[in-house]
Amino acid sequence: MTEERLDALERRLRLVEDQLAITQVVLAYGPRVDSGCADAVAGLWAEDGCYEFQAGVAPLTGRTELADMVRSAPHQAHLNRGCAHVLTAPHVRVDGDTAIATCYSLMHHFVPDTGIFQVSRVSSNRWDLARTADGWRVVSRTNRLLNGDPAARELFAGTVGS
Amino acid sequence: MTEERLDALERRLRLVEDQLAITQVVLAYGPRVDSGCADAVAGLWAEDGCYEFQAGVAPLTGRTELADMVRSAPHQAHLNRGCAHVLTAPHVRVDGDTAIATCYSLMHHFVPDTGIFQVSRVSSNRWDLARTADGWRVVSRTNRLLNGDPAARELFAGTVGS
Amino acid sequence: MTEERLDALERRLRLVEDQLAITQVVLAYGPRVDSGCADAVAGLWAEDGCYEFQAGVAPLTGRTELADMVRSAPHQAHLNRGCAHVLTAPHVRVDGDTAIATCYSLMHHFVPDTGIFQVSRVSSNRWDLARTADGWRVVSRTNRLLNGDPAARELFAGTVGS
Repeated sequence: MTEERLDALERRLRLVEDQLAITQVVLAYGPRVDSGCADAVAGLWAEDGCYEFQAGVAPLTGRTELADMVRSAPHQAHLNRGCAHVLTAPHVRVDGDTAIATCYSLMHHFVPDTGIFQVSRVSSNRWDLARTADGWRVVSRTNRLLNGDPAARELFAGTVGS
Repeated sequence: MTEERLDALERRLRLVEDQLAITQVVLAYGPRVDSGCADAVAGLWAEDGCYEFQAGVAPLTGRTELADMVRSAPHQAHLNRGCAHVLTAPHVRVDGDTAIATCYSLMHHFVPDTGIFQVSRVSSNRWDLARTADGWRVVSRTNRLLNGDPAARELFAGTVGS
Repeated sequence: MTEERLDALERRLRLVEDQLAITQVVLAYGPRVDSGCADAVAGLWAEDGCYEFQAGVAPLTGRTELADMVRSAPHQAHLNRGCAHVLTAPHVRVDGDTAIATCYSLMHHFVPDTGIFQVSRVSSNRWDLARTADGWRVVSRTNRLLNGDPAARELFAGTVGS
């Protein structure tokens, strides 16, 4: 009886810890990418993880490409202009050693002329994650701009639609 | 002694699970409503749950009215134009089998002329939830536009003000 | 054996509870400050906690100064105009009885002329918290405007950069 209660507690607690750990992975992305910490961004992904950040553009694959994106001239220009990759807390579904996280990303830019910020992009996001020896890591992340394109809605519908 | 420790652990873990489950209900709303998954939106509410989304407008009551709102021409027009119902992670207070969640909702619209997004509405939100046989469900949700109207502040003050 | 499993469960559950409690402190700030609940805002801080909300401006120190800020004419003008201090769910690192939480704050203002909202400020945030007899409280919060100033990026890099 005690044994069974301990087993159940350990199982339930592990699920809670998984949900929180996955949430932390997603919430770490913005502060890392907006501070230009290239390796720390890449380290959120699995070794061969990929990031499809725009329809029609080849996804980034592997940590080297991810870190290179952060170090690239276009990304550094974003940082110098003033930008914020704001991610909402994700809806999380854990299934054993894999999980799907769903959230919004909102890219804000500072506009010197006005002294205020503009919302440059709002996208639906799907994160596929896996439990690794080092904790939960991103296997694949896909964004779609919520500009009326049905693809952005389909991304959401496929994760939390039922 | 072991018995008491197990009892305490089960009680504490249940509270943690409740907090996370309620947070997931709130975070599921945006992706479901922005992908037009009408029944999935309605399923977040209790059978006779209600949603008072605007002062002076009759609240939606019951899952049929909630799903009909998602399927309505005005909501479909929002989707086709490009919109995002961004909800912040809620502050949650659990009290046995009921709970109150407090958060912001920010409605973003894509503006084709500019290629960027506008923040059309920012509202205070109060969600009253209940534990049901199928998990936590929304009994009542109320929004108030944060446009200076004291009602929006009172909604917040009534939930987290003390 | 049972004893060891109970010990491990209690230790792990406490860490989960700490993460959630700290998240709740951060998520309570917005609704409290936007509803003008001055003492409730101040109560999130430790007795002698401080809030450095702008570079070059002396930080608020202690609960009296924090509550006075909420009651001040400038803050009340914000509330009457319509504003929302939107905070994202924080990344949280707990280390025994202290913790660091990292998030974004986005200040939205209602603009009567247009009927929509503007994003007036987007800042990086670092919260240092401590476990007290009354639960987790803020020892120090620092914001930096993400307008291209390297200080805002350094604030983030110092908390989640590695």
